Amino acid sequence: MAYRALNHDTVVDYLRGVPALAEVIDLGAPLHAREVGDGNLNLVFIVENGNAAQSVVLKQALPYLRVAGESWPLTRERMRFETQALLKHNELAPGLAPQVYHFDDEMSLVVMENLSGLEVMRKPLVGRQRFPNFADHISTFLARSLFFTSDFYLTGLEKKELQAKFINPHLNKIQEDFVFTNPFMTSPENNWNPLLDAEVQAVRRNSELKLALAEMKASYMTHAEALIHSDLHTGSIMANATETKVIDPEFAFCGPMGFDVGAVLENLVLNCLSHFAHTPDDEERRAYQNYLLDLVRAIWEQFAAKFDALWVENNRGELMPAAYWDYPGGDAAFAEFRRRTLARILHDTAGHGGAKMLRRMMGIVSVWDITSIADPAQRAVAERLAIRIGSRWVLERNGIERVDDLIAIVREEAGITP
Amino acid sequence: MAYRALNHDTVVDYLRGVPALAEVIDLGAPLHAREVGDGNLNLVFIVENGNAAQSVVLKQALPYLRVAGESWPLTRERMRFETQALLKHNELAPGLAPQVYHFDDEMSLVVMENLSGLEVMRKPLVGRQRFPNFADHISTFLARSLFFTSDFYLTGLEKKELQAKFINPHLNKIQEDFVFTNPFMTSPENNWNPLLDAEVQAVRRNSELKLALAEMKASYMTHAEALIHSDLHTGSIMANATETKVIDPEFAFCGPMGFDVGAVLENLVLNCLSHFAHTPDDEERRAYQNYLLDLVRAIWEQFAAKFDALWVENNRGELMPAAYWDYPGGDAAFAEFRRRTLARILHDTAGHGGAKMLRRMMGIVSVWDITSIADPAQRAVAERLAIRIGSRWVLERNGIERVDDLIAIVREEAGITP
Repeated sequence: MAYRALNHDTVVDYLRGVPALAEVIDLGAPLHAREVGDGNLNLVFIVENGNAAQSVVLKQALPYLRVAGESWPLTRERMRFETQALLKHNELAPGLAPQVYHFDDEMSLVVMENLSGLEVMRKPLVGRQRFPNFADHISTFLARSLFFTSDFYLTGLEKKELQAKFINPHLNKIQEDFVFTNPFMTSPENNWNPLLDAEVQAVRRNSELKLALAEMKASYMTHAEALIHSDLHTGSIMANATETKVIDPEFAFCGPMGFDVGAVLENLVLNCLSHFAHTPDDEERRAYQNYLLDLVRAIWEQFAAKFDALWVENNRGELMPAAYWDYPGGDAAFAEFRRRTLARILHDTAGHGGAKMLRRMMGIVSVWDITSIADPAQRAVAERLAIRIGSRWVLERNGIERVDDLIAIVREEAGITP
Repeated sequence: MAYRALNHDTVVDYLRGVPALAEVIDLGAPLHAREVGDGNLNLVFIVENGNAAQSVVLKQALPYLRVAGESWPLTRERMRFETQALLKHNELAPGLAPQVYHFDDEMSLVVMENLSGLEVMRKPLVGRQRFPNFADHISTFLARSLFFTSDFYLTGLEKKELQAKFINPHLNKIQEDFVFTNPFMTSPENNWNPLLDAEVQAVRRNSELKLALAEMKASYMTHAEALIHSDLHTGSIMANATETKVIDPEFAFCGPMGFDVGAVLENLVLNCLSHFAHTPDDEERRAYQNYLLDLVRAIWEQFAAKFDALWVENNRGELMPAAYWDYPGGDAAFAEFRRRTLARILHDTAGHGGAKMLRRMMGIVSVWDITSIADPAQRAVAERLAIRIGSRWVLERNGIERVDDLIAIVREEAGITP
């Protein structure tokens, strides 16, 4: 079927023509569709048939991305990357990504599980909600999706097959431009709080910082370590008290693992800083900020422990075969190889996390946690801290020995006591 | 035309059926073909028509690679990678690779320039021949083939297109196994001088060295910096006093630049060590060994200068746009980015060069420079030094600040005075 954008009428006709969906939703019942996407990037329809247990989401790519008020053509192939990645996540981290029911490449659409009862995390985090299973779930997602797509698990041939399937130039380009480059130079789409003019200009003229950001961009572009989500902020995670689902993996490609881990941690830090405005009560604020910093620690520590355990239990990859470590002292060397690998992922977590923290303050996309602070002066408090913390994460990345070093930078700059 | 292996009769019929070749060789004249390949990997025919100025080489892939006495199936697609890379090298480094006249994917063959009058470099280097243009030519080849296929020159989209075209899993796997893994563990195809048993076992049990080798393998597998030749030893270079041509790029893929630079330098060092046996006269030996070490210095220094100059003159790549450095002090930061990048390539040159030096001593493939030393005790002199030097290049790589540091290790271990 030739590509055409669907609307809330045609989407119903389309779904009735997909018999495989009958297992999920009674297509004979009256179907009702509503568009819930923001309309900038994709169409997103929730389709229901009156039975609360039966509904699906249909997501269709539009052939453009509307940014900064102008139209940016964007290949529709991103829906293929999203579907491939969703299937991979379901396979590797069952229960932690929405199920895929149907994919139509020509129409650039995917039909998937409707995550009713779960909420995108940003708003509940601003509302000081706690997620008792989040550290466990997201660390499992990270450890499993990264380990099982890395050279520590895959053979050389398997890895290249995966890499070929996820060569994703157009979505890469968005991150190359809008994470690592444009925010740090003059570019018309950049957007920042005018109260931060001095800080923003200082970042753009800080040579040591810009050299470090260029190195992080080189890492993003050339270090094909594992299949990464590549946009794993708290707006790409839906959760409630019991469940967690990672959504929107259209940016997926083989890149540096620290980019994903860093995205999760830095978004929790940005939310933490937003509470200087959102939570005026000192005690209440301090408690929730400490909850978030504990979450940062728990996510890294659980991720590292799970990644290491998976590696010990499944050491079948190209890097390195068990026989390579089969000599007196080889066990200790294998353990040291794992330790050094995780230390390097932590350095990258700091570097990529810091870069992304900075770009949220002075690039095209901000985070709702902070833009929802109405008063510019109050907003500037959180933003100034984010610039200081992001800069230090980037600059000090190779000296970071444990996650507590990252947290200590947040505490020092923001004055958050335990 | 369905694949069939050609012989010296059918190759002539095949060529007569390719009208495009008429521009290179008179197909109406009586053609004479002889097979000159070693028969293990590819068929190589030189086809002549009696006119000394008119001849071509036809190279055809066989569907297997015969190693260690057993048959190893190998996809014929390697001829496509070789042809693609030859075309790229001709485009980027004109005159430094054989010209391509015809490619037939079905038949897995390429027809190219016959490099009569040039010789594979190993034997003339053993014969103490000097190549007055070699440092200039090979440094130009390295600088141009690497810079113009890197993210410093290509846009993000161009680089991914190149990368997709050169996903080369089966040939990668040969290097992954036989450069970085099998030589350093028990594996039936490994081969070494029995006089070196103790040294070989010591390498296989040296945890610090094995950790470093694992890091170099990770670099080879995941650092997609530029289109590298990926097998650039002196057996892949043909030369005479005036010309230099790089051949056999079937291993080409997007990998770490230091792997190519390291291959050239370490093969010159291995040849240098071979003269302890090949050149008994002290004065004559010292002179040629110093010639080779000067060549190592000249190649690196000219490579670095040319790479840097190309970057300054052609700064259009994704890493980083000129506008990124457009601020007071930005010129110095851009210069520092180039300096750090070349410093990193030198570290990788040491690490990959050292790894390859070691594997030649204890893996499946040796180098003729050294195996041509008939007396095992004399051979062991060169081999022991190669193991010591290779180990130090790998272990000390991140402390190497200039090429003279690499040369100093060779001088110290081998006792070669200037």
